[in-house]
Amino acid sequence: MIKAINIKDKLELIDELWTPKVIAELNGQQVKLAKIQGEFVWHDHKEEDELFYVLKGKLVMEFRDRKVDVNEGELIVVPKGEEHRPVTKEEVWILLFEPKTTKHTGEVKSDLTVDTPEEI
Amino acid sequence: MIKAINIKDKLELIDELWTPKVIAELNGQQVKLAKIQGEFVWHDHKEEDELFYVLKGKLVMEFRDRKVDVNEGELIVVPKGEEHRPVTKEEVWILLFEPKTTKHTGEVKSDLTVDTPEEI
Repeated sequence: MIKAINIKDKLELIDELWTPKVIAELNGQQVKLAKIQGEFVWHDHKEEDELFYVLKGKLVMEFRDRKVDVNEGELIVVPKGEEHRPVTKEEVWILLFEPKTTKHTGEVKSDLTVDTPEEI
Repeated sequence: MIKAINIKDKLELIDELWTPKVIAELNGQQVKLAKIQGEFVWHDHKEEDELFYVLKGKLVMEFRDRKVDVNEGELIVVPKGEEHRPVTKEEVWILLFEPKTTKHTGEVKSDLTVDTPEEI
């Protein structure tokens, strides 16, 4: 069924950090929401570019040779093969856009790894 | 170069209605911004699903058999092959996510058709 999806309503359903939830799918890509805080694991995605759009708070995207601030209302595209690690001081809410095949920790297995993100 | 893209700053660069501008690209998909007002042309995309995310205002997505309100902060995915027409009363700002190959008027040629959207 075709319907409007309310981002704020969906965010209210998320109570775990670092656990992306799928809210929409199109053309083999997924739109996900996540709440994050602290330091994620270093990883890359060999075949997939990944988009982070900051809905609330401020994210620092760390690369091996530099850091990029991504403030509320900004987005960043991390190209495939580029090692990265999202870091935040406070809780940050993000929208992700990436292929359905993308694992959020790449090939790195961590306590944070979620193999198949839940749909909400 | 990897950098943060500020949505509000990009929106300020847009002064024409119904003229999507490309702000990012990944995995063969593009992120576009557009300002729209009034009634668009009826069209579909044979092979491409299309995502509309309303940043400001209220959009009504008309289908042949129903209408769906898409309010500020909401998104809708229009499946491929589904005839649709965005309609707004006032000026509405949207973010689009769709394959690079998607033409905003589908196969319909109209005065509004933009063959190759500009990057901003």
